[in-house]
Amino acid sequence: MVRVAVTGASGLVGECLIRLLLGHPDVEVTYLGSHSSAGRDIADVLPSLKGELSLGCKLPEHDDIAAAADAAILAHKSAESLKLTPRLLEAGVKVIDIGGEFRLKDPALYQQWYGQKHTALDVLGEAVYGLPEYYRDEIRAARLVANPGCYPTAVILSLAPLLAAGLILPRGISVSCASGLTGAGRTSGVLFIDGNENMRAYALAGHKHWPEMEQELAALTGEAVRLTFVPHIVPINRGILSTIFAQPSGAPNQDTLRGALLDKYADEPFVRVRDWGGEVCMANVRGTNYCDVSVDYIEATGAVIVMSAIDNMLKGACTQAIQNLNLMFGLDETAGIGGVRGS
Amino acid sequence: MVRVAVTGASGLVGECLIRLLLGHPDVEVTYLGSHSSAGRDIADVLPSLKGELSLGCKLPEHDDIAAAADAAILAHKSAESLKLTPRLLEAGVKVIDIGGEFRLKDPALYQQWYGQKHTALDVLGEAVYGLPEYYRDEIRAARLVANPGCYPTAVILSLAPLLAAGLILPRGISVSCASGLTGAGRTSGVLFIDGNENMRAYALAGHKHWPEMEQELAALTGEAVRLTFVPHIVPINRGILSTIFAQPSGAPNQDTLRGALLDKYADEPFVRVRDWGGEVCMANVRGTNYCDVSVDYIEATGAVIVMSAIDNMLKGACTQAIQNLNLMFGLDETAGIGGVRGS
Amino acid sequence: MVRVAVTGASGLVGECLIRLLLGHPDVEVTYLGSHSSAGRDIADVLPSLKGELSLGCKLPEHDDIAAAADAAILAHKSAESLKLTPRLLEAGVKVIDIGGEFRLKDPALYQQWYGQKHTALDVLGEAVYGLPEYYRDEIRAARLVANPGCYPTAVILSLAPLLAAGLILPRGISVSCASGLTGAGRTSGVLFIDGNENMRAYALAGHKHWPEMEQELAALTGEAVRLTFVPHIVPINRGILSTIFAQPSGAPNQDTLRGALLDKYADEPFVRVRDWGGEVCMANVRGTNYCDVSVDYIEATGAVIVMSAIDNMLKGACTQAIQNLNLMFGLDETAGIGGVRGS
Amino acid sequence: MVRVAVTGASGLVGECLIRLLLGHPDVEVTYLGSHSSAGRDIADVLPSLKGELSLGCKLPEHDDIAAAADAAILAHKSAESLKLTPRLLEAGVKVIDIGGEFRLKDPALYQQWYGQKHTALDVLGEAVYGLPEYYRDEIRAARLVANPGCYPTAVILSLAPLLAAGLILPRGISVSCASGLTGAGRTSGVLFIDGNENMRAYALAGHKHWPEMEQELAALTGEAVRLTFVPHIVPINRGILSTIFAQPSGAPNQDTLRGALLDKYADEPFVRVRDWGGEVCMANVRGTNYCDVSVDYIEATGAVIVMSAIDNMLKGACTQAIQNLNLMFGLDETAGIGGVRGS
Repeated sequence: MVRVAVTGASGLVGECLIRLLLGHPDVEVTYLGSHSSAGRDIADVLPSLKGELSLGCKLPEHDDIAAAADAAILAHKSAESLKLTPRLLEAGVKVIDIGGEFRLKDPALYQQWYGQKHTALDVLGEAVYGLPEYYRDEIRAARLVANPGCYPTAVILSLAPLLAAGLILPRGISVSCASGLTGAGRTSGVLFIDGNENMRAYALAGHKHWPEMEQELAALTGEAVRLTFVPHIVPINRGILSTIFAQPSGAPNQDTLRGALLDKYADEPFVRVRDWGGEVCMANVRGTNYCDVSVDYIEATGAVIVMSAIDNMLKGACTQAIQNLNLMFGLDETAGIGGVRGS
Repeated sequence: MVRVAVTGASGLVGECLIRLLLGHPDVEVTYLGSHSSAGRDIADVLPSLKGELSLGCKLPEHDDIAAAADAAILAHKSAESLKLTPRLLEAGVKVIDIGGEFRLKDPALYQQWYGQKHTALDVLGEAVYGLPEYYRDEIRAARLVANPGCYPTAVILSLAPLLAAGLILPRGISVSCASGLTGAGRTSGVLFIDGNENMRAYALAGHKHWPEMEQELAALTGEAVRLTFVPHIVPINRGILSTIFAQPSGAPNQDTLRGALLDKYADEPFVRVRDWGGEVCMANVRGTNYCDVSVDYIEATGAVIVMSAIDNMLKGACTQAIQNLNLMFGLDETAGIGGVRGS
Repeated sequence: MVRVAVTGASGLVGECLIRLLLGHPDVEVTYLGSHSSAGRDIADVLPSLKGELSLGCKLPEHDDIAAAADAAILAHKSAESLKLTPRLLEAGVKVIDIGGEFRLKDPALYQQWYGQKHTALDVLGEAVYGLPEYYRDEIRAARLVANPGCYPTAVILSLAPLLAAGLILPRGISVSCASGLTGAGRTSGVLFIDGNENMRAYALAGHKHWPEMEQELAALTGEAVRLTFVPHIVPINRGILSTIFAQPSGAPNQDTLRGALLDKYADEPFVRVRDWGGEVCMANVRGTNYCDVSVDYIEATGAVIVMSAIDNMLKGACTQAIQNLNLMFGLDETAGIGGVRGS
Repeated sequence: MVRVAVTGASGLVGECLIRLLLGHPDVEVTYLGSHSSAGRDIADVLPSLKGELSLGCKLPEHDDIAAAADAAILAHKSAESLKLTPRLLEAGVKVIDIGGEFRLKDPALYQQWYGQKHTALDVLGEAVYGLPEYYRDEIRAARLVANPGCYPTAVILSLAPLLAAGLILPRGISVSCASGLTGAGRTSGVLFIDGNENMRAYALAGHKHWPEMEQELAALTGEAVRLTFVPHIVPINRGILSTIFAQPSGAPNQDTLRGALLDKYADEPFVRVRDWGGEVCMANVRGTNYCDVSVDYIEATGAVIVMSAIDNMLKGACTQAIQNLNLMFGLDETAGIGGVRGS
């Protein structure tokens, strides 16, 4: 049994993670860290957990975590990971950071987008971007995994094979994403009466997931990629849908384009290539670790429409973290994740 | 491995069942029956199953089922179960009927409420009402289990201990239930624009779950129970919330009343006694097999408020069926069900 | 033109009121009071009003209001009405209080339920309960109207005629109400992710609308009325649905019961008697000042089911306030309210 | 009083239109046509209208309509307008067609996108595209107005001023729109359980609103415009949000771009230019005839993001039709529409 600590335990991601880990056959939850709930039993903080788990929350300290756990999944929003991570690694605890602290390779870029200086430069360099479809071997060998952002997961998985195959241009890409409201978490949550029967865009001038997408797409395809990104919120609990407009490179056809996705994902357990964009929807991936992707060549306008969908709480956060955990500890990659069991 | 057949495979309950059974460690789905989808692969019919299961749907025939499966879970709405069930039992297949064909003991009552003559009288008598909290031993020994209705599951589990302890009167009970719209299934489904931002009551003059509740409450408590039942639909996918007004018998207090629930459910894996009615809600049970229950004695009016919540697709149908399956085959009662893993 | 001041202008009720008053042919909005938005233009505070109204918000002072307005509609939640109201009346401004400060006749009951001493006893006695269907003449003559609570509006309008006709017993009445989340306002609002796909009860031990219902039902029927009241929240913006279980008095039949509603409301412009409870729903009254009511006698159990529906923001607050304003100023009672125009 | 006939009276658009016309001070509803409800009173067909209007529905015949009405608003989905319209015009009835029969100027294009031959060529040429912001004078003089599609209304109003000013390129425009589910009407409606908690794209290969957008944008700007259009459905009753990616022409800046919108719409009663895209949302326009628009120049990528929002049932259909009716009959353009009264 891998002993796992979860910090940010009483947050939305923490709750989801704990629920999933309780069903993982090879994992035991042995430590819960939380600032807001330190001193309280998790079942009192999260009523859904009553009868499932009784474990006190503590102020997260690296010594306590190292004494209790083999791995720590950090789900705070704050930069506390910057302080904890080097100490946990030193103490022999493997770390999966669900926050964004170790995703951007360039500390200057981190400072620009996250509004603070990166103070864990010693370990930043060894962080592996936790997208198993592209970095499986690196994740297996890693001590520190930066779990991808929700929007980047959906966007990179759908675009990368087409860019890598040279079928679409790496510039002039327009990305429109819609997210359910669990994406905002609880502390910066939207009121029901404001979110219900409403849809709006936000962060048009720049969202911190944007440099993450450009960094990874460039790394995966070997050339600079420029995209415009507009995120939206929709009155849904869970789900991300990406609608991406790209320009073809050369003279593609539907088979070539779709073939690039099929080739890349033929053996992937958690990516499904759909027949066309209308089959990619939030409902088909809700409660699962799947990323559904599609590509459509629109003859009339010569445009390429790439779509993808994930459950932002699962493939966009929690089950992807478990997928990474499984790889880091030599477990079955799909253990504790389920296929479509969840909803 | 227990080999399981599912009929009504492409319906809402069928889809949910299949998804759950795929994650069950001791079960294999070996047969899918469906009238509307016969001849098609289930992954083409239900897009969420792509990558999970490839299996052709067939017109349900008892011979085929018996050749392929040890157990059949019948999830049609129609009365086809009346025809299939005796033949399946004869062929040695254990049956769990999710429809209502074997719940009412009295064939006349069945005819009155289901609008057709009961034609499987030979086996009706041996059907066990599949509420494990009350009939665990009988279910273990049964060939045929009548899986309870969703409303009855929520109402019986909360009321029965209080009635059995003589703490509330068996008459003058008023039951107001609200259900998510998966309860209506797909064929008689409500349009989004009619269901969204709306709530209404239905079947005031009588719902077929009403005699089921009265039958079982009488059986469990030893005296006739009379209740008035008003079901409602609310703009939610999954969940049932019951708000029950009862009159105290004698001079109860909060501790006595709550004690009756605690005593009964102390060792039950899937019933949780909440502190008060405001803690019983659809969100806390969504994606789980839990039934959350509470009782509040309102001093000002001398009324007793009993509340309960379930996920109508899970404890109200699919995971309760799996709980029954586990009991019938000697498996761990909680196998393949998960605790709070699901959502 | 009646010059109207609105306080609590930037709250949910304030915004709704302003939008409605802008469409009223005989009314001009001349003053906006708001603590949180004082010094700002209302169109900057409430984006929906851009292009409709440009008017600065002020800290509410009785002198300023009296200089600008003939009537003040008070839509704060706080007890500031207790201070403002006597001064406004003295200055010749008619007052409609949408908060609950002047609904309960008994100051001790007010203190018990609202948690503070009533400090406007001089004028409390003259406050008229603003339910036009029962107090039309008194409202016409009033300087001070206490606009009814949302739940009481729905419950009183449906129950009173049956109680007054002696057709149901005044005790043992069980009231289950569900409200959309605008009912909670903005400051104590529920997060989308907590309210969506969820339903729960609250305030089981006592809601401040409960003594209001009992007071008015007793006043209208001449005898003490005892009811048990359980409010719920449902994932809907607007609407209240009441499901009421009562016991018949004597031997009623469906015609007698329904006749009592029809007799009372034959000439009322804003109450509609529906054929049965399934026709009473939130959608049919959304965007309107209607209260839809029904009564069903359930032969099998001998119970009487009374139902009603309103838009909690309109008949439950804003359009009922305008109906009262119209009566107080001798305008057409339906002016500025519309029938079903709104949605 | 202008006497108005509504056909398609019992559909979703018909119901909304009737509700609005009942509140119009200068209009009387004198005729209701409906195939599905002929012979029934509208208040029996549409429960929300009880107490508002009692009028029988008839099979739509041009003679009957001409005898009863000065204007006919056609809200069928079918091509029956092709038959009725010439006869109504001949009989002196002015026609507003809410279907798409008279929007495309080119009959061949009509046949391609609507799947049938245009059989009212005599009058097609005189049809005026009913977008008052661009064709106000022509509408005043028209006998026949083609009420714009919902998506085209939102897209044209936001894009046209920027294209006309030469600030964005007329090619490479990517349009992502999301619509509430009233957009699908009732006959092709989506089930609650399929639409709720879900979002998907549809009609990627071509939606019939696409040639309408290109036709009108070309007409308004004097050059061919090419755009790629992806519509989506979101779990909302009402609203359209457009997110449009365009490329700047020359070296624009935020002020130049926004200035083009402000110049065009300075005096328009129903278009509001918002400060940035995050202020354009469905909630701010729900229940109104407003189209909110914005433009954002994204320095980092050099992209131009144009956004717009309307209530698809109002500015996208019913209140825009009333705006056209007002113009055609010399009434106040805003009569019967209200500002933000509606929700």
